[in-house]
Amino acid sequence: MSEQTMWLEDFEVGQTFEAPPYLVSQDEIQAFASEFDPQPFHTDPVAAEESVFGELVASGWHMTALNMKLFVAHGPKIQGGIVGLNVDDLRWGAVRPGDELSWQMEIDEIHPSASGKPRGIVRMRHRLINQNHEDALHFVVSCLVPARA
Amino acid sequence: MSEQTMWLEDFEVGQTFEAPPYLVSQDEIQAFASEFDPQPFHTDPVAAEESVFGELVASGWHMTALNMKLFVAHGPKIQGGIVGLNVDDLRWGAVRPGDELSWQMEIDEIHPSASGKPRGIVRMRHRLINQNHEDALHFVVSCLVPARA
Repeated sequence: MSEQTMWLEDFEVGQTFEAPPYLVSQDEIQAFASEFDPQPFHTDPVAAEESVFGELVASGWHMTALNMKLFVAHGPKIQGGIVGLNVDDLRWGAVRPGDELSWQMEIDEIHPSASGKPRGIVRMRHRLINQNHEDALHFVVSCLVPARA
Repeated sequence: MSEQTMWLEDFEVGQTFEAPPYLVSQDEIQAFASEFDPQPFHTDPVAAEESVFGELVASGWHMTALNMKLFVAHGPKIQGGIVGLNVDDLRWGAVRPGDELSWQMEIDEIHPSASGKPRGIVRMRHRLINQNHEDALHFVVSCLVPARA
C-alpha cells in the first residue's frame, strides 16, 4: 500500500479527519430500508407524509452503515483495520433525500493497554453533519489499535 | 392491521420480546461489507485468516441493521412506528458465517413526557445472542412512543 498505516503512537487527542459531502438519494434510503428497516416512513414517500416525520427519512441504522463507508473510504488507515469494540452516546437527526452529509471524526481519548500489551484503545467521536450544520448522526466508538512497541 | 399496536400505556418494565434464531450466511456478510464496510476481514475469507479475528466476521454495523430487521419483523408493533432517538452501551461480539442469532429485547425504563404531552420515552435493551449463548450485539435504545391520553 502506498498510504501509510497508523499505529497507536500515531494518534493524538484532538486530531480530526473528514470526508467530502455525500449526497443521499431517495433510492438508497428505500433500498436499505426495504432490506433492514421496512417501515413506511423509510420506504413510502406518500405514507411518510402521515408519519411523525412528515416526509421520507433514512433509517438510523442506514446512517451508521453510511458513516462506516465514509470512515473506511476517507478516514485514517489503521494498522490491522478498524476494530470497534463498543459505542456510546449515539444520537440521530432526520436525514431526507437530497441531504448532503459530511463525515467528521475527532480523536477524543487514547488509552495504552494497562497490562503492557502492544496495543491500546482509541476513542473516536464520529459525526455526520448535514448542509444546515445539524448533526444527522453522532457517536463515540472505542477502537482497538495495535502499538509499534 | 389485525395485530394491535402498542401505545405507551401498554409497555411495562421487564416485558420481554424475542425472535426465532436467524442463520447468518457468508453471502450476506460479504454483500453488506462490500457496500458499507469493505475491509478484508469482512469480505475475503482467505485474507481474514491473517487478521486479528483469524476468520471472516460480520461488520458490526451489519449486525445493528440485522437487529433492526428482526425488531421490525418480530417485535411489538408500536403506534406510529419505531422512532429511535439515541443509543447507549452498544457492544459487539464476533459473528461468523453459520452463526444462529436470537434477538431478544427487554423493556428497561418508561418515562412519560415531563411536560404532559401525550407521549413518552421507552428504553429498550436489545441483544443478539449466538448459539453458544454469547452476546453478538447489545445496546439500549430510547424510543419515542405516543400515549393514548
